[in-house]
Amino acid sequence: MMLKVDPLAIRQGDRLALSRALTIVENNAPESRELQSALFPFTGNAHLIGVTGAPGTGKSTLVNQLAKHLRQIHQDRKVAIIAVDPSSPFTGGALLGDRIRMNDLAGDKGIFIRSMASRGALGGLAHNTAAFVTVLDGAGFDQIIIETVGAGQAEVDIASLAHTVVVVEAPGLGDDIQAIKAGILEIADIIAVNKADRPGSENTARALRAMLNMAQGKKHAPAGKHIMVSVDTLTSQTPPEIAWDPPIHTITATEGKGVNALVEDIHKHAVYLHSSGLWEKKEASRLRRDLESLIQDSLLRKWRYELDHQHFETILNEIIERKVSPIEAVDLLL
Amino acid sequence: MMLKVDPLAIRQGDRLALSRALTIVENNAPESRELQSALFPFTGNAHLIGVTGAPGTGKSTLVNQLAKHLRQIHQDRKVAIIAVDPSSPFTGGALLGDRIRMNDLAGDKGIFIRSMASRGALGGLAHNTAAFVTVLDGAGFDQIIIETVGAGQAEVDIASLAHTVVVVEAPGLGDDIQAIKAGILEIADIIAVNKADRPGSENTARALRAMLNMAQGKKHAPAGKHIMVSVDTLTSQTPPEIAWDPPIHTITATEGKGVNALVEDIHKHAVYLHSSGLWEKKEASRLRRDLESLIQDSLLRKWRYELDHQHFETILNEIIERKVSPIEAVDLLL
Repeated sequence: MMLKVDPLAIRQGDRLALSRALTIVENNAPESRELQSALFPFTGNAHLIGVTGAPGTGKSTLVNQLAKHLRQIHQDRKVAIIAVDPSSPFTGGALLGDRIRMNDLAGDKGIFIRSMASRGALGGLAHNTAAFVTVLDGAGFDQIIIETVGAGQAEVDIASLAHTVVVVEAPGLGDDIQAIKAGILEIADIIAVNKADRPGSENTARALRAMLNMAQGKKHAPAGKHIMVSVDTLTSQTPPEIAWDPPIHTITATEGKGVNALVEDIHKHAVYLHSSGLWEKKEASRLRRDLESLIQDSLLRKWRYELDHQHFETILNEIIERKVSPIEAVDLLL
Repeated sequence: MMLKVDPLAIRQGDRLALSRALTIVENNAPESRELQSALFPFTGNAHLIGVTGAPGTGKSTLVNQLAKHLRQIHQDRKVAIIAVDPSSPFTGGALLGDRIRMNDLAGDKGIFIRSMASRGALGGLAHNTAAFVTVLDGAGFDQIIIETVGAGQAEVDIASLAHTVVVVEAPGLGDDIQAIKAGILEIADIIAVNKADRPGSENTARALRAMLNMAQGKKHAPAGKHIMVSVDTLTSQTPPEIAWDPPIHTITATEGKGVNALVEDIHKHAVYLHSSGLWEKKEASRLRRDLESLIQDSLLRKWRYELDHQHFETILNEIIERKVSPIEAVDLLL
């Protein structure tokens, strides 16, 4: 099969080819699978850094700074940013802020930014993010920053995808956000309290430390046993003497204050993962999930292809008329 | 098969049976499917009201007020609240605020509140919410309020599930949140600008009106054609003369100000859906998605059951060693 985009061009740093490849992958175009397979042998090198937190914490500014600092420290290492847009799930438009950011970093050939619309079907976002990572990793990016907004599912997804999760907090965002913290703290490898110039940032850092200690306690309690998320399981397999204690940084991203120390800890975390054997385990879990998700897609596609559509519509009508339940209908259809 | 919970007891208003049923469904216990099938014939009556918005907008307080007002207007109609927790995806703990809320509404036998942890596997949240709706609808609740926090996927999910989506906004939450607005406005049937006592609420309402008009324009543009979300498709099928123009309410949820008018519009929207034929179409879309999601689960379960685990692990290792790509592996495994 002829690919519209040459994987070799992507490997050699052709920006246009890379952009096209990501569009192909995002739109799930026919050549998407072929392209990912062609790049896959070259993957497995990138450090995947997730940056997440509630809206209003200044994540985007921090991501911007992180990219700059990562480049300053190691000029031979390329940085890619995947910004998962909080913009329309329907129109998938890019944000103005995103474009401003692009201009700011545009001078550096070692930085590549791509935003992704959070549109599409259930789980589509996680699926696309994984595909973007494959393409960018295969293209030779050494560090891939994945920026996600929001609560709930997005955090679980980033925890299973990234090697290192940076959770961004800010002082005084209200009770609602306080509640979210409890959840995302448990996926944090590093915590950044942004807007350190605002009142209350030290209090926030202290409160986070306390919550973190509580969460750490929980992690090793038997109650955690039933939890299905692999990252957590992996952590509990680590001998206590080499356990990672998430550091808390107070930073002012707008001025770049404290970002250097944060970047140092990001590098330290990568070293920790390698030396503890967790890196390999995380990679294996991630690839297992990728494979299972692809299998699920393929099964559904195969079933759709072989489906007797008239039979399906007849049964759907019986569901609408409450003659059969959806669960009973599955038995009739499979 | 003997069910641990009697569907008849649930139908007759037994609270304990209902709580148990929801736990069974949430844990995906063996009797979950049987139970949903038993209740399914009695579903299809409830008005599903989604309440969503960014953290810090005061959603929970509004939901509380909505439930009270809905009960005051129609004392014969029962209200259920499904609060999708922003708390830990890992421990799945309930929030303190949730318990406070429960106490506040506990005196009314016509209100039932259940929170759901946003834990678990990809798409699990949407799956569980749909199952909760089946149980509560089957239990005879006339109005089911589904409260979701966050951006991105959660909004898409609520748009496909609920009949009426109330988007909650608040003045002055920063740029990051502004960005989110653009996305969730497109799923809004009704907009509530909360914290109307704060400065800037009128400006927020005006800005929202402008954004909404812009989004409305977009909806009818050809660019929207590729979009897969059914709600949008349905809307564009509506003749313009009976189109719904999302009203914007400024409210102060903490004091209950403006909530009555909001509730009136929620009822008006239900009438609109029925008279335009959209209610039936939405129901059909929702049941179709439920069915397809169940089929996907079943296909994966069946495949897992028949799987040669050793073969799977061998291939997974070849993926880890970059000898085959996950996409190529799917062909080897299916």
